[in-house]
Amino acid sequence: MEFSVEELAQQVDGRVEGDPTRRVGGLASVTSAGPADLTYVVGARYARLLNDSRAGAVLVPDGLDIEPNGATLIRVASPELAFSRLLEVFHPPRRREPGIHPTAVLGRDVEIGDGVSIGPYAVIEDRVRIGAGSSIGAHAYIGPGVQLGENVRADPACSVFEGAVIGDRVRLHPGARVSSDGFGYTAGPDGPVKIQQIGRCVLEDDVEVGSNSTIDRGSLGDTVVGRGTKIDNLVHIGHNCKIGRNCFLVAQVGIAGSTVIGDGARLGGQVGIAGHLDIGAGASLGAKSGVMSNIPEGQTWSGSPARPHREWLRASSAFYKLPELLRRLDALERAAENSDGEGN
Amino acid sequence: MEFSVEELAQQVDGRVEGDPTRRVGGLASVTSAGPADLTYVVGARYARLLNDSRAGAVLVPDGLDIEPNGATLIRVASPELAFSRLLEVFHPPRRREPGIHPTAVLGRDVEIGDGVSIGPYAVIEDRVRIGAGSSIGAHAYIGPGVQLGENVRADPACSVFEGAVIGDRVRLHPGARVSSDGFGYTAGPDGPVKIQQIGRCVLEDDVEVGSNSTIDRGSLGDTVVGRGTKIDNLVHIGHNCKIGRNCFLVAQVGIAGSTVIGDGARLGGQVGIAGHLDIGAGASLGAKSGVMSNIPEGQTWSGSPARPHREWLRASSAFYKLPELLRRLDALERAAENSDGEGN
Amino acid sequence: MEFSVEELAQQVDGRVEGDPTRRVGGLASVTSAGPADLTYVVGARYARLLNDSRAGAVLVPDGLDIEPNGATLIRVASPELAFSRLLEVFHPPRRREPGIHPTAVLGRDVEIGDGVSIGPYAVIEDRVRIGAGSSIGAHAYIGPGVQLGENVRADPACSVFEGAVIGDRVRLHPGARVSSDGFGYTAGPDGPVKIQQIGRCVLEDDVEVGSNSTIDRGSLGDTVVGRGTKIDNLVHIGHNCKIGRNCFLVAQVGIAGSTVIGDGARLGGQVGIAGHLDIGAGASLGAKSGVMSNIPEGQTWSGSPARPHREWLRASSAFYKLPELLRRLDALERAAENSDGEGN
Repeated sequence: MEFSVEELAQQVDGRVEGDPTRRVGGLASVTSAGPADLTYVVGARYARLLNDSRAGAVLVPDGLDIEPNGATLIRVASPELAFSRLLEVFHPPRRREPGIHPTAVLGRDVEIGDGVSIGPYAVIEDRVRIGAGSSIGAHAYIGPGVQLGENVRADPACSVFEGAVIGDRVRLHPGARVSSDGFGYTAGPDGPVKIQQIGRCVLEDDVEVGSNSTIDRGSLGDTVVGRGTKIDNLVHIGHNCKIGRNCFLVAQVGIAGSTVIGDGARLGGQVGIAGHLDIGAGASLGAKSGVMSNIPEGQTWSGSPARPHREWLRASSAFYKLPELLRRLDALERAAENSDGEGN
Repeated sequence: MEFSVEELAQQVDGRVEGDPTRRVGGLASVTSAGPADLTYVVGARYARLLNDSRAGAVLVPDGLDIEPNGATLIRVASPELAFSRLLEVFHPPRRREPGIHPTAVLGRDVEIGDGVSIGPYAVIEDRVRIGAGSSIGAHAYIGPGVQLGENVRADPACSVFEGAVIGDRVRLHPGARVSSDGFGYTAGPDGPVKIQQIGRCVLEDDVEVGSNSTIDRGSLGDTVVGRGTKIDNLVHIGHNCKIGRNCFLVAQVGIAGSTVIGDGARLGGQVGIAGHLDIGAGASLGAKSGVMSNIPEGQTWSGSPARPHREWLRASSAFYKLPELLRRLDALERAAENSDGEGN
Repeated sequence: MEFSVEELAQQVDGRVEGDPTRRVGGLASVTSAGPADLTYVVGARYARLLNDSRAGAVLVPDGLDIEPNGATLIRVASPELAFSRLLEVFHPPRRREPGIHPTAVLGRDVEIGDGVSIGPYAVIEDRVRIGAGSSIGAHAYIGPGVQLGENVRADPACSVFEGAVIGDRVRLHPGARVSSDGFGYTAGPDGPVKIQQIGRCVLEDDVEVGSNSTIDRGSLGDTVVGRGTKIDNLVHIGHNCKIGRNCFLVAQVGIAGSTVIGDGARLGGQVGIAGHLDIGAGASLGAKSGVMSNIPEGQTWSGSPARPHREWLRASSAFYKLPELLRRLDALERAAENSDGEGN
């Protein structure tokens, strides 16, 4: 596959500076790109890397002052977004051919939209509805009564259980478990007794759930993940949580039951959040934070127990001065005792 | 499905206060319940919510002074336990029909009890024994020689490997890996050499293992999880651990090899415990604790490295005063220097 | 299976002290071994346990002064390595018979080496290459174009996706997800837009990937795990990471994208490492560390944010003295005020 810079610029509404007939055969990072590759830079900091780059074509931000170093430039509003679009030109997402593999097991009253693909050994239980254009991977399991929207992609070995309602263009990565039972028990006479979990698990449009992540269904009500929210690998979301729209949950985040997270929140890797809390819209949590209190809108918190990021930064920096601080305190005490002694 | 309050009270050995003929068609939380719903309150703190509730019937604790707000009350010892029982009345746990799906692959010398259900594409290796009433989900894998008790429920896509001995009424959630190889290596001439893992993995009766959790088999001896212990999602238990009875391990807990945990211990989310430690019976570990020492019976510890909870609380609270503390120390030192100067 | 001590000594190049004709029927730990068992001790600390051991034969280090307590000794350079070899004598690793199970689904242009075993319901996509002696477990999924070396063992329910290049003798434990999509998004006009991931995921020879662990493919370039590196359960490795040779990543470690880790590094359980960092060769990270800066070669760091281990130890110990430290500071301030008052 090969294109002229001109043709690629048209795909991303870009403006060419330099030779528009130059041929581009691939995409690469600025450090590894060769003369037939197109790359991108997002700002002045990365623009310097162009000096050592052999890239033939470069997506650059509209306003940025830049030295082309022999490359043809394509000016765009967001080079990263444009590069992302060209990735789909050069590497069209592989789609399984529509059709139901003969080994797939389908229950009764299953409704399947146009252009759906169901892979080998997938198991689709009774009363499932699968929207048009969706793709169900090998060994995937879709439980009784589950509803999947249009253009959903359920990867191999993922499971979606009863109570799940999945929006359009949702992507479930391999091994994701959606709408599994929550961790609900009560004390019985002979030990803990399981509380039957009967709520729903709603993933709105454009949600992505990473590999081997787990999202429990509601106990009585709903667990909800809002439109556009992206969940990384090995994340756990407890029952009855409500996650807002366009949030990012980085790998190994854990959220205990019934916590509410506002739109656009960003949770760093391995963050843990206790149950029944409110995390405000646009809040940002540093990696490994342990959150045990509500967090106001738009604030950045870190640490465990988490506190406003600056407070945590200052305290963390002081933490490693503690041994010295103890020595200084000892010295002051000795001095005070001596001066007391002198005073007597 | 609809019942009178009278009928429901009989199911839970409760005493009716108010109209016993009132009809109940569903179960709901106190805030979302409507006039045809039954809900429950566990204590005085939640009883206030009844003022704004439209619930038709309410399970309440025997002794609690309560304003019914138009609802019929059912007095019971434990409203949560009673509610849990009624959940099974209104939502009987779905059971797969007994029988072996024609696509299941069974090895030689497999023994299968009465009323067992084996789902599509399950793979059962040689010499497996499955007790009466057990249910094996779609795509589950049961390794050679594994023994499963009665009324076990192995969910879709879980795996149980050689060396596993599983008690009665054990529940394995989707993607759980039981009796997998532990992380044992020794230094060889050309790099690490794997130490063959040959021990067992014993899950006693009524154990529950969450989605995508992993429990390694013993290296030489046994890994054991005691009766009634409940394990949440994405938990890791290393080889040779002995976990007591009726413990709770919340999501993303990790326990290194050979650690022993007493009966009734409670481990909060993302707790990590080093290897070869003893955690006393009834100990409670705060979420995200990092445990590097033995913990006495019945104590609550938190923090990383973990310490008695109150000690940790006080130190954590002082931690965020560290920058101020440093300023105060600076001021004292300056004052001391000045007074020294004055003294000279 | 039974052997004389003499025969076993020959297997491990050992030297017998005591009765070489003694019969050994099994292997056990020093505390559980009986008269017909062989055990091992690695040093003086464990040698004392021999006093209470009933073991019939013991592997001991060449130089160690030891009281045999009636047992026959076998002197070797590394008792643990020798024991590991004898484990394979007494418990030969179970190998599935070579052959392709009739239920396995194979794509077009698949190349399969000699002696390969493919289990029930495995799915092998187009253009896969599987080296001689490899074994693919039940329900495993091998994506389009994936290359597997010789004597690879892919356990049940693992998945290997497009872009993966897997070396010889690699072991993938159940539920491992290799070469899955990384967590890459850019801001679009209506919310986050996924950046297509097209890089490779290279696992060199002798790598081991634990149960339910996830390793993302590179975004444009490669994710690489070096020869001999061992990865425990529930570990996450982000896109574009380069992990060196002979590293150990203990359970629940998480590494964000593009981080580089040198040869022989050891990462304790639940360690988290931020993206785009350099961890030096031979570095060692304490369990639960949160790494936010580069780490020099050969150093041991701990804590969150991580710092050199000794610094962290001293600061952690001082941390729990903070409340007392605050009281002492208060006392000094009061004393200073009083002496000021006296001075006036």
